[in-house]
Amino acid sequence: MNKASHPEKLRVALAGLGTVGVGVYRILTQNAGLIRNRTGKTIQVVAVSARNKSKNRGVDLSPVDWVHDPKLLAAREDVDVVVEMMGGDDDPALALVKSALENGKSVVTANKALLAHHGMDLASIAESKNVSLMYEAAVAGGIPIIKMIREGLAANNIAGLYGIMNGTCNYILTTMERNRGSFTEVLKEAQELGYAEADPALDVGGGDSGHKLALLTALAFGCKPDFDGLYLEGISKLTAEDLIVAAEFDCRIKLIGQATKLADGRILQMVGPCLVPKTSPLAHVDGVLNGIFVNGDFVGPSFTSGRGAGEGPTASAIVADLMDMACGVSRPAFGLPSGSLGSAPTATREDWSGEYYIRLVVKDRPGVIAEIAPVLRDHRISIESLIQRGRSADQPVSIILTTHETTGREMHRAAAQIGKLETVLEQPLVLPILKI
Amino acid sequence: MNKASHPEKLRVALAGLGTVGVGVYRILTQNAGLIRNRTGKTIQVVAVSARNKSKNRGVDLSPVDWVHDPKLLAAREDVDVVVEMMGGDDDPALALVKSALENGKSVVTANKALLAHHGMDLASIAESKNVSLMYEAAVAGGIPIIKMIREGLAANNIAGLYGIMNGTCNYILTTMERNRGSFTEVLKEAQELGYAEADPALDVGGGDSGHKLALLTALAFGCKPDFDGLYLEGISKLTAEDLIVAAEFDCRIKLIGQATKLADGRILQMVGPCLVPKTSPLAHVDGVLNGIFVNGDFVGPSFTSGRGAGEGPTASAIVADLMDMACGVSRPAFGLPSGSLGSAPTATREDWSGEYYIRLVVKDRPGVIAEIAPVLRDHRISIESLIQRGRSADQPVSIILTTHETTGREMHRAAAQIGKLETVLEQPLVLPILKI
Repeated sequence: MNKASHPEKLRVALAGLGTVGVGVYRILTQNAGLIRNRTGKTIQVVAVSARNKSKNRGVDLSPVDWVHDPKLLAAREDVDVVVEMMGGDDDPALALVKSALENGKSVVTANKALLAHHGMDLASIAESKNVSLMYEAAVAGGIPIIKMIREGLAANNIAGLYGIMNGTCNYILTTMERNRGSFTEVLKEAQELGYAEADPALDVGGGDSGHKLALLTALAFGCKPDFDGLYLEGISKLTAEDLIVAAEFDCRIKLIGQATKLADGRILQMVGPCLVPKTSPLAHVDGVLNGIFVNGDFVGPSFTSGRGAGEGPTASAIVADLMDMACGVSRPAFGLPSGSLGSAPTATREDWSGEYYIRLVVKDRPGVIAEIAPVLRDHRISIESLIQRGRSADQPVSIILTTHETTGREMHRAAAQIGKLETVLEQPLVLPILKI
Repeated sequence: MNKASHPEKLRVALAGLGTVGVGVYRILTQNAGLIRNRTGKTIQVVAVSARNKSKNRGVDLSPVDWVHDPKLLAAREDVDVVVEMMGGDDDPALALVKSALENGKSVVTANKALLAHHGMDLASIAESKNVSLMYEAAVAGGIPIIKMIREGLAANNIAGLYGIMNGTCNYILTTMERNRGSFTEVLKEAQELGYAEADPALDVGGGDSGHKLALLTALAFGCKPDFDGLYLEGISKLTAEDLIVAAEFDCRIKLIGQATKLADGRILQMVGPCLVPKTSPLAHVDGVLNGIFVNGDFVGPSFTSGRGAGEGPTASAIVADLMDMACGVSRPAFGLPSGSLGSAPTATREDWSGEYYIRLVVKDRPGVIAEIAPVLRDHRISIESLIQRGRSADQPVSIILTTHETTGREMHRAAAQIGKLETVLEQPLVLPILKI
């Protein structure tokens, strides 16, 4: 904490006054009594910084100092905590957070990209200055998943975690299934409704889920965040047909971020579409919701779901971190002192063992399956079921296969070989089937 | 904390060595390295107490002092925390916890009955002695719900919470539905399998859920635990037919503990079977699992599920509390200093507004509905649907009705009147339909 900390107040500076910043200001104002009762302190916003001062944000900012340059917030004597809500994985957010920590101020941030790339550096600075770096809002705002892993399930060795961590993708997949729409159509609608960004690449490409997964992996397994070691795959190759066929296998397709510890100690971090059985609560996380499973050696599977983003949930998570700070609670950013975080050797999707779903687009003529089957046999992959849809003389048709358990190594080699067959018109789509 | 606290150790005494006690000992031994890394301290069991010393519990207790009288644990100089796992809402558990707190030792307990009845007294003693009273394991062991409400969602005014809080009842209902079995048959099976106690009254009568609900209500709404103000109803009147018919309304029947704040500030606490729509994650919490929804003004609905009880989950929750203590975290037992906890005036089931499910057992003869309909009309209750099952000359038949929104007051008055009709053979079964 700040050396000159106030006995009755936690003094906060807000950097960024978009939806989330306004949400934080609103919750601190509206629920001020509740927050004081629960923490014994007043959490007071003393200064803010944002690009446009004149914009009407629907909240009364008159009691608060307006600072043009966010870096000035980090230098103020009267600030205990800087809340960074500017976004972006580099300056100015990085410079602000660094200088706040270096000046002995704690930081709360919702910025998963920043932490996935620079989390280790920032955690080390926080430790050396004896201040806190907290980020409950960075992953699934409506779910206190950081606290759950770091504290609630802290007595457990975590075997694995699996989650729907991106509301935009989940909304798109849910809508594609419901309306039988194509990815492109539904993405466009989502952009019009404000559920997807104008540049959707970070969401639909899996990068945003990857940022979040890197943070959860670090916390759960006691290792450094390793965004570069992640396998990333987005949802743009999925068709409505995939989603509908999956239902026939009593599954749904979700963009899943998963981290599991393999028997040899390596950690597999993967983001990509997976089939999830309808018996799993993850299959019922729809629309913009997020949901995450954590599997501990004593607790077993523990599941949680809620809103992933938006003003209210993100602000609720940021203020929860501030309230912990007001109560004097301080934990290392990734659950362990940063010097004790390991660098677990990274596994790849080749190391994922289990059943698979494969969609092939082929020329509709007799004998196609006779060409595919030997390739699978040569990789010791056994077919669990096969569906061939639609028949037409000169249109390509889909063949959908599910396999018995195999390794990613065999599966992806077989798929690459199948993709080269003259009758197979596209690279096969290969999706893991999760058994959770 | 104990005045003579050890700089590198948290020294623990275990009172009770049943399944849970052994689980705690096992997790502290097996995951000792992890726990030390995460907290910076060794959590060491220095003494235990249980009835039968010679019983083989499958763990090596030789390094630990064995004490015959649990109260001796509370007096030991070398103990920082007493973990109470004896159970029961009165002495000897009560005497042990009281004397531990009075001797300046923190207490961790899994004992919901004790806290529901004596929680306020015990919280006050803990506060006056500046020690902690923690009980994550008392409600849904596999779900860190106490921490979630007290800390993760602490910035929110809670509008309501709803949950499946008793694994025994949930197992019975799931099995009755799956196997079309009667309550009595399935309870007997559950007892044989060890999922239900020899005396099942506390579980199937709703009392155990009530104990847990009283604790969650106190935390969520900042009021004193008020077990006596709860409306309690068990599951023994339910039939397989109810469970199957509910599915036709796209619902499932679950034993739900709910606490909601009414517009006039009163708090409604109810335990009883409810219809839950299949679109709700609660509908998919099956078998011995627990699941809880919390609805906050900023976060929206946040859901969590996991194992409710058993060695691993309960021990995981107890050790999480011990780890918080090892990190020096201390919070008031019910989220607020006990002096600031309000006594919210209690609402009754009469105040629950919504749609209802009604099952009537009637003589099968023409005109029955003509007798029932006017009673409902007189209470301004409008029928949403009506199903009459089975027809036989001299066997009673069931009529199932669902209503549009009405108040509990009108609904239960109408039901009482209907129960007096000569053609109606049993008191009507009236279940709320939750819209969550």
